[in-house]
Amino acid sequence: MEEILHTSYAIDTFYFLVAGILVMWMAAGFAMLEAGLVRAKSTTEILAKNIALYAVASVMYLIIGYYIMYSSEGSIFPSLGFLIGSENTVEDVLAGGDDAPYYSSRSDFFFQLVFAGACMSIISGAVAERMKLWAFLAFAVVMTGFIYPIQGAWSWGGGWLSEIGYSDYAGSGIVHMAGAVGALAGVILLGARKGKYGANGQVNAIPGSNLPLATLGAFILWMGWFGFNGGSELKMSDIDSANNVAQVLVNTNMAAAGGLIAAMIVSRILFGKTDLTMMINGALAGLVSITAEPLAPGGFQSMLIGGVGGVIVVFSILALDKLKLDDPVGAISVHGTAGIWGVLVVPLTNSDASFGAQIVGIVGIFVWVFIASLIVWGIIKAVIGLRISEEEEYEGADISECGMEAYPEFTSSKN
Amino acid sequence: MEEILHTSYAIDTFYFLVAGILVMWMAAGFAMLEAGLVRAKSTTEILAKNIALYAVASVMYLIIGYYIMYSSEGSIFPSLGFLIGSENTVEDVLAGGDDAPYYSSRSDFFFQLVFAGACMSIISGAVAERMKLWAFLAFAVVMTGFIYPIQGAWSWGGGWLSEIGYSDYAGSGIVHMAGAVGALAGVILLGARKGKYGANGQVNAIPGSNLPLATLGAFILWMGWFGFNGGSELKMSDIDSANNVAQVLVNTNMAAAGGLIAAMIVSRILFGKTDLTMMINGALAGLVSITAEPLAPGGFQSMLIGGVGGVIVVFSILALDKLKLDDPVGAISVHGTAGIWGVLVVPLTNSDASFGAQIVGIVGIFVWVFIASLIVWGIIKAVIGLRISEEEEYEGADISECGMEAYPEFTSSKN
Amino acid sequence: MEEILHTSYAIDTFYFLVAGILVMWMAAGFAMLEAGLVRAKSTTEILAKNIALYAVASVMYLIIGYYIMYSSEGSIFPSLGFLIGSENTVEDVLAGGDDAPYYSSRSDFFFQLVFAGACMSIISGAVAERMKLWAFLAFAVVMTGFIYPIQGAWSWGGGWLSEIGYSDYAGSGIVHMAGAVGALAGVILLGARKGKYGANGQVNAIPGSNLPLATLGAFILWMGWFGFNGGSELKMSDIDSANNVAQVLVNTNMAAAGGLIAAMIVSRILFGKTDLTMMINGALAGLVSITAEPLAPGGFQSMLIGGVGGVIVVFSILALDKLKLDDPVGAISVHGTAGIWGVLVVPLTNSDASFGAQIVGIVGIFVWVFIASLIVWGIIKAVIGLRISEEEEYEGADISECGMEAYPEFTSSKN
Repeated sequence: MEEILHTSYAIDTFYFLVAGILVMWMAAGFAMLEAGLVRAKSTTEILAKNIALYAVASVMYLIIGYYIMYSSEGSIFPSLGFLIGSENTVEDVLAGGDDAPYYSSRSDFFFQLVFAGACMSIISGAVAERMKLWAFLAFAVVMTGFIYPIQGAWSWGGGWLSEIGYSDYAGSGIVHMAGAVGALAGVILLGARKGKYGANGQVNAIPGSNLPLATLGAFILWMGWFGFNGGSELKMSDIDSANNVAQVLVNTNMAAAGGLIAAMIVSRILFGKTDLTMMINGALAGLVSITAEPLAPGGFQSMLIGGVGGVIVVFSILALDKLKLDDPVGAISVHGTAGIWGVLVVPLTNSDASFGAQIVGIVGIFVWVFIASLIVWGIIKAVIGLRISEEEEYEGADISECGMEAYPEFTSSKN
Repeated sequence: MEEILHTSYAIDTFYFLVAGILVMWMAAGFAMLEAGLVRAKSTTEILAKNIALYAVASVMYLIIGYYIMYSSEGSIFPSLGFLIGSENTVEDVLAGGDDAPYYSSRSDFFFQLVFAGACMSIISGAVAERMKLWAFLAFAVVMTGFIYPIQGAWSWGGGWLSEIGYSDYAGSGIVHMAGAVGALAGVILLGARKGKYGANGQVNAIPGSNLPLATLGAFILWMGWFGFNGGSELKMSDIDSANNVAQVLVNTNMAAAGGLIAAMIVSRILFGKTDLTMMINGALAGLVSITAEPLAPGGFQSMLIGGVGGVIVVFSILALDKLKLDDPVGAISVHGTAGIWGVLVVPLTNSDASFGAQIVGIVGIFVWVFIASLIVWGIIKAVIGLRISEEEEYEGADISECGMEAYPEFTSSKN
Repeated sequence: MEEILHTSYAIDTFYFLVAGILVMWMAAGFAMLEAGLVRAKSTTEILAKNIALYAVASVMYLIIGYYIMYSSEGSIFPSLGFLIGSENTVEDVLAGGDDAPYYSSRSDFFFQLVFAGACMSIISGAVAERMKLWAFLAFAVVMTGFIYPIQGAWSWGGGWLSEIGYSDYAGSGIVHMAGAVGALAGVILLGARKGKYGANGQVNAIPGSNLPLATLGAFILWMGWFGFNGGSELKMSDIDSANNVAQVLVNTNMAAAGGLIAAMIVSRILFGKTDLTMMINGALAGLVSITAEPLAPGGFQSMLIGGVGGVIVVFSILALDKLKLDDPVGAISVHGTAGIWGVLVVPLTNSDASFGAQIVGIVGIFVWVFIASLIVWGIIKAVIGLRISEEEEYEGADISECGMEAYPEFTSSKN
């Protein structure tokens, strides 16, 4: 009946838009998380990077990224094109059948766009406090317009990873690990913050300047993830789909809870104190861990999957410091290491997935994003330079890049 | 017709999930409110408590709490069981009739879970700045897994309070007063912060360290309450239900507005200044006041009900200080005193409710939660102790419990 | 069929309520934005103004504003009445036909109420740091109860602006410019902050005290705008409407992105630094610019429309300083100047609109709001005074108006 197609189309479109709004909100979550975990003197600049990268992602994904990701029809090399195609007509929808569109293509664009923003948001934290603002934005142009969409086309666009059976429901690998790998390439070329690693191999803690902000960011991300994973069911308007979306939300929440508690206990045992930043990173690692398969497990299993993610992330953060890879907010560990765990654990609960395909997916995405990012970061380094000067870093990126302090009345001396 | 059952099931499930997300967001609201109202040196620890308690509530409510609350079938003593039961099948739903499920049972679990988190969030503020982190978490395990669900079963689970006609739409008593009573028991055993009450009976103001955070928390709670009350209609998919949800949102908003304005005027008269923290507490007290019956009154009546709550809360805060019950954020007054008012006022607008049943409900919930909490707090005190040492309190709970300051660059001296 | 009317009514009501919640959330966005852009010593008071004005708007719009705006039936002079009318009955809805209500009238009230709050929120920022709290609240009573609804009745209430074809989808003129004009009248009567303009005509920068808060506010507003514009389609439950809502969200997002990037580039060229506060104002100006017509353009056009808004806002801010009109947060430029641009650009993409009608609308709204506001501000000035004393301003409005500092432990000296 026609009327029912109208209402179900409205439900699915509305559901998609609400999920997209929640994922857009994650951009604020990343901004607050990162602003809270860097020093006061680098805060204005990390805020500027975060809000600007979302704008850049919006423009690049509109112009080219969405087309690359969803219109390349299965080939490794994307076909090129511009803008986002036409909206569904009423006739298309009412034709019914399996191929008929059942939600607005614009709502799909919006939902996919905010994923591109999330991927890029991961990177800003890892390169914080020492990278030039415009070098970062130049990378954002290429990442959100090309690097991310090209590998996204391999799986969600129906490409070769999709064909071999790579299974990644909402993007533990496609979004989170991809962002972390782009960040890793940047961190390698960029080097550590001055003073982070001592001459004799010691690791100096550089505490975050504003933990309420960081905690707020974690809560925002936790909330936004209900849209990130919940929207990735792609349908809401029948009983099975609605049940699935509800299960995804429960599992997403349980994985975050498991990750937080696990990281809290591990940090208490390792450090003798209950480390709030590790709790936050544990919750986020739990969320990343469940993102590749938030539907198949039960709530208790999801808690365990997230819990393992929460343990992994603590040791990954310690290991990166051993390697002198300076990641001020732990983004590479949260999104990269836990992302790999999330992709690998899928076959345990989803019998349609295979370890082989999951490993091929991880390797394929890793190699592509790492090499492409290394080249792009390298070109930017050669042309305009990646890093602010040592003196600028000492004074703080806020002054050199943005010309204003984040807290001009509160901080009398540089740290 | 089958299709219509699919779409209405989808609508009600979606509505439930959106409401649940909004209530989950209240966890962030409590965290920001409490972080803003404590001193800087206790901020990391209150943040840690708030984000951890939500994780603990998620796990405990999954494992046992939800089962206790909704499967005890009317008996005072809960039957025991584990996890959250099976999801509705398509056949169950399509069978139709009054007993057929009309929304996902997982969405119901999610919605109920976040209420357990909200109840526990109330407690963290009242015991802030002096309680051991792990003592608090131990209490959270028992509260969210047992104490809260057992009395919840009495009313929302179809138990004896439900049978005698106790009426509490979204939980002024079941959630808010219950949390406040658990907090009261803790505060009595814990004692006041050092320096709060002078030797000669004077009350020393200890100002909150970050009022923008506290205000943000109030806005988040105000927003989240639209899910808290709005979702408690439990249905959205027909005209009457949709009208009811809309009325609930209007009334919730009006009660908050009334409470804020009333507390603002009272504080201006009493103190000569327009006290922002009283305005915030007034708005929250207005919200608590309308929570027991946000549907029956009109918008103007709701404003008055909230307004009375806003007046009550100011005097309740002053009275608790006279009794040397130190509640740094005013949680016992906001959720307890205004919660009692909210339960008592129901019969004025809802003719199905009676003062007798409301009073029995208040007394029943109060006695159970108070005694159970006192015993649990007492056991924790005997085993690991409730309170950090005097020196740790002077240095701040952040260092002793979490090993890190919330604002390491901003605060040079201890306050 | 009856069932389908039930579900579509539920969808449209639900959509309206979600949009309303997002717009209510903008009140928090304005509060954070303004709190971040003023000095620390004026922060408590700007927070108090923001949360109180939303409460005042709720009460006034309930008592009289909504009636004036939507029941004056096309006459310039409003008919008077009280409260918000009756809810739709099931029979009304099931009667069907073009005149039958298709969503809850309470959800409409809620959605319109939060617009009144948004209009008033614009004003608080412009008069920050020097106006008496209760003078501001007195103005809020008149603005949200009368001034805003009277001109709102001219267009959205079916009045003369509607009849001549004035086109303003979600209120670039009706809400944003109206708020900015009310602010402008206040700023003229109020004068600049002490020290803002030097004796020799120099403009002294007064940096915002907390840029993470300001950025958070911008993100909240960006998010809330999806409800502001998205809800203004007023319908969601059929294919065309759903497509329209999705297009509106995409366009809203693209305009913000365009505005941010444009202002970022302009500020980099003009000032040599990448100015975060200009980026924020650029994004907001982009949002205001698209608000008069977020449906007709494509995504790329929307980006350009927003981009022009982002350029305009930078020069408008500089120009107002030349005129010694002190607007601490740039609200008059963001909402006024960009609002005029937004209204004027409608005919370029919407062939139903005409430049003539748009200009008449701008002039009509401007003249009414400016004169009425000037009179009301003038009366308040004569009766209780608008401005705190010079000494109070030096000490900070927080102490004189609210009796408490926003950050008592962080700021040792007055700035």
